[in-house]
Amino acid sequence: MTKYSIGVDLGGTNLRIAAVDERGNLVEKTTLGTRVALGRDHVVNDMCEAIQQLAEKHKGSGELLGIGIGVPGIIDMETGMVRESPNLPDWTDYPVRTEIERRLGTRVILENDANSAAFGEKWLGVANDVDDMAMLTLGTGVGGGLVLGGRIWHGMAGMAGEFGHTTVEPEGALCGCGNRGCLEAYASATAVVRMAREAMASGAAPGLTRAANSGIEFNAKAVYNLANEGDEDARKIFGCVGRVLGIVLSDMVNALNLPMYVIGGGVSSAWEAFAPEMFEELRQRSMVYAATSPEASHGKGASGKVGSMGTRKTIVTRALLGSDAGLYGAARLPQANGS
Amino acid sequence: MTKYSIGVDLGGTNLRIAAVDERGNLVEKTTLGTRVALGRDHVVNDMCEAIQQLAEKHKGSGELLGIGIGVPGIIDMETGMVRESPNLPDWTDYPVRTEIERRLGTRVILENDANSAAFGEKWLGVANDVDDMAMLTLGTGVGGGLVLGGRIWHGMAGMAGEFGHTTVEPEGALCGCGNRGCLEAYASATAVVRMAREAMASGAAPGLTRAANSGIEFNAKAVYNLANEGDEDARKIFGCVGRVLGIVLSDMVNALNLPMYVIGGGVSSAWEAFAPEMFEELRQRSMVYAATSPEASHGKGASGKVGSMGTRKTIVTRALLGSDAGLYGAARLPQANGS
Repeated sequence: MTKYSIGVDLGGTNLRIAAVDERGNLVEKTTLGTRVALGRDHVVNDMCEAIQQLAEKHKGSGELLGIGIGVPGIIDMETGMVRESPNLPDWTDYPVRTEIERRLGTRVILENDANSAAFGEKWLGVANDVDDMAMLTLGTGVGGGLVLGGRIWHGMAGMAGEFGHTTVEPEGALCGCGNRGCLEAYASATAVVRMAREAMASGAAPGLTRAANSGIEFNAKAVYNLANEGDEDARKIFGCVGRVLGIVLSDMVNALNLPMYVIGGGVSSAWEAFAPEMFEELRQRSMVYAATSPEASHGKGASGKVGSMGTRKTIVTRALLGSDAGLYGAARLPQANGS
Repeated sequence: MTKYSIGVDLGGTNLRIAAVDERGNLVEKTTLGTRVALGRDHVVNDMCEAIQQLAEKHKGSGELLGIGIGVPGIIDMETGMVRESPNLPDWTDYPVRTEIERRLGTRVILENDANSAAFGEKWLGVANDVDDMAMLTLGTGVGGGLVLGGRIWHGMAGMAGEFGHTTVEPEGALCGCGNRGCLEAYASATAVVRMAREAMASGAAPGLTRAANSGIEFNAKAVYNLANEGDEDARKIFGCVGRVLGIVLSDMVNALNLPMYVIGGGVSSAWEAFAPEMFEELRQRSMVYAATSPEASHGKGASGKVGSMGTRKTIVTRALLGSDAGLYGAARLPQANGS
């Protein structure tokens, strides 16, 4: 009899539930809209019904190991309360774990959604052969997750991994968290659109202005399409995304010396537009990266200096699982819990 | 029979060797000048002679568990080579571990000096009741060390913990590492003197100028003394030190969510002069700190919001062991190695 678990990715827009077996094979996936406007009780009811249906359906064919749920926001791991959730505003201080467990009559594991995504990429994605990795998820905001020794690093209260709120411009743009100049204020989908609107407001971005007035939704994807077509103003915006990512990755490489850093989330589709600047910053700003980058052995290494660090390379790469990373990571939580 | 180990703190100026028992009691300490100018072989000979004398002397009274050596610079943990050492310029790519082991006829453990300092504070200092902590050592440069689960976090090649090279001003002052705007370029003793000279060059820092021309050595301590006497220009410099420390600590708190962050090194004597700005930045920039700072339960906590995180507080504090932290940490290495 196969063993499987149920993972949930609770987003501000979509609520996705999947049954995944121990080998990472998808058994079944359900996607619902997250009815945020109806309030948290409705959302939790929808989620619990879908979980129960899935569990009922696969009852005969496998053993259910448990349920893992990725939630956007800061989670208190001890109490199972949501502490801050910009996308689920009425969930603050809501005892979400208790509410779900009461409805389902079984224990569940809560996790921050960006931590779940990192865990998913570590299990089945680009990081599946390393034990230590960090991930940045560039979406509406910028989430972060850190996996050390094969386990999510939670810190003392489950709040670790908030790389999206690293300061990159001390006097820069105001971030939703209250700080100025966070990575999130320059590398999220929201930030891409804001920077595009700032460029338009300056009156000197004809391509962006045309796109904004075209009647088609003006979002980060639209800015990326323009950048792809060679529009200079759009390209500059992704140059900025790459620059701030490079600064934060340099900090991370210097601080943690991990073998792999993964970039995921919707904005990572614009990899070609931001990666050159990102790697340029990494090479210039991080001596650890300079000594361990994949090209180091061909560059500095020839001189016998810091490049000759052997085979231990620092890899900065795109995520592999796309929007499924968080879902798979959540499903992995009850499986990996005992390890 | 007591068990003891020998720790070495190899600095650019002083070479300190101590025998320390398992409980952290100092058995004996020797301080020599580091004869850097005579070359690395001389320094290693001096070190090995002092180690042997100490071992010989205490042969009858205890069992020697091993030898730990803190070295300034980037160390390749696998090969025991020094990769980069600004204070020991001719040591680059020197197989220091092999050379020492050959002379002593026994194994030794090499460690980065800032990692040793963090380990020392974790063992016998201010962090002795936490398992996870990070330390910044503000000296000639800014060193960093990270202890997770009671062990030094090395990353994949022993290069982790370089918090001193976190970018705080992307277009800021050039750092010795090649990057612009590193913490080290604003919070080291070297940076304090540089900022003082910059203030003097602007022609509007009479107190600093008087001190610089007084005939007494003009160093970070002299600038601190002026700040202490109320000199506005000197106070501004330490305000800057506090500001950049607050930025980097905010990043660290958000990323790692540790219970304790320790500030040591010579410049930490100026705690009163930089701490107010440092804590101000922390409160403003880090939502995790705002939710977990010691005063959070009196502030936000009263509203039942993020402050009510229970007893898990984030402590940012001065180091306790002064210049002995690295020496004790090095001595602990062979004791803790088997744990």
